Amino acid sequence: MSSCTTVEELGNEVYVLRLGHRPQRDKRITTHVALVARAFGARGIYIAEVRDDSIKQSIKKVISKWGGSYFEISDGVDPLTIINKIKSESGCIVHLTMYGLPIDNVINEIREKCKKILVIVGAEKVERLYYEIADYNVAIGNQPHSEVSALAIFLDRLWRGREINICFPDAEYYIVPSRRNKVVKRVDRK
Amino acid sequence: MSSCTTVEELGNEVYVLRLGHRPQRDKRITTHVALVARAFGARGIYIAEVRDDSIKQSIKKVISKWGGSYFEISDGVDPLTIINKIKSESGCIVHLTMYGLPIDNVINEIREKCKKILVIVGAEKVERLYYEIADYNVAIGNQPHSEVSALAIFLDRLWRGREINICFPDAEYYIVPSRRNKVVKRVDRK
Repeated sequence: MSSCTTVEELGNEVYVLRLGHRPQRDKRITTHVALVARAFGARGIYIAEVRDDSIKQSIKKVISKWGGSYFEISDGVDPLTIINKIKSESGCIVHLTMYGLPIDNVINEIREKCKKILVIVGAEKVERLYYEIADYNVAIGNQPHSEVSALAIFLDRLWRGREINICFPDAEYYIVPSRRNKVVKRVDRK
Repeated sequence: MSSCTTVEELGNEVYVLRLGHRPQRDKRITTHVALVARAFGARGIYIAEVRDDSIKQSIKKVISKWGGSYFEISDGVDPLTIINKIKSESGCIVHLTMYGLPIDNVINEIREKCKKILVIVGAEKVERLYYEIADYNVAIGNQPHSEVSALAIFLDRLWRGREINICFPDAEYYIVPSRRNKVVKRVDRK
């Protein structure tokens, strides 16, 4: 935990908006999107329109063990309400899509211009509307892969890899990196 | 497609071994792992022990449209057979796990030493055995996230981001990056 980076030190304040979650089909993918959001330094995730308690439960379990109680998770939200809120706070809307502009061409501008960022990740199809609302449509390569990997690479480029050493000061447990073992320690709060 | 990087130019020859796939629960996650493998420059994926035609079909559909016919996908494989094969070819076994050594401490050594690499990604629990067999147990951060994001960040670090511009010369379609639209072109082979 020595040379870790706090979420504040990362700089930009990032939230994720998950569109098109289908509870049956996407349960695990959306859970992984949320886990990436937390582990790579976002402040929270909004799941548009539908409610899915099982995802909230999974993430809360992770937070109670590994920290990050600031991390917000809201489901059943209206996407346009969130988008307008971020816009009204001078934040940027970044939509990750394989059709967008290459990340390496836009990431420096995004890092410098956007203090607050809402990153939109969709499921299979994203409505045209979001391409128009977005300040940046950004491609993590122009090949199909995954919203999970797209979000991870976006945040990794945004923070130039510093988020890999993120610290969660309220964690109950932490890992000591090991060549061949699983070394988990309980944080001593005395 | 102008300044793209071919899979050969990336250098190391990488395959992915997916452990612990549970057809009901992991269908979409394993599909996303396979899509990341292809899009980020791996040569193929082995799915251990179980067979799952739906994953093979999804990936083959992607390949027929976006290219990468060299990309191998085999299911129902015996993991130790694959591991021993790679070892016999002087390849390295890299196991991605949140308990491992920080990627930034080991990636240069892996890039230089390992011409051929088998990257093992598990589902929830990975047997002790694999920690012992692996030449490198590598952590993409010591926080829980996803095998999808872990694989993407590993390959992105391995190839220093060059894989983002990978070319698939046998693609039928390609995307022209766009600020706000979806621009897909058919490759003209005349």
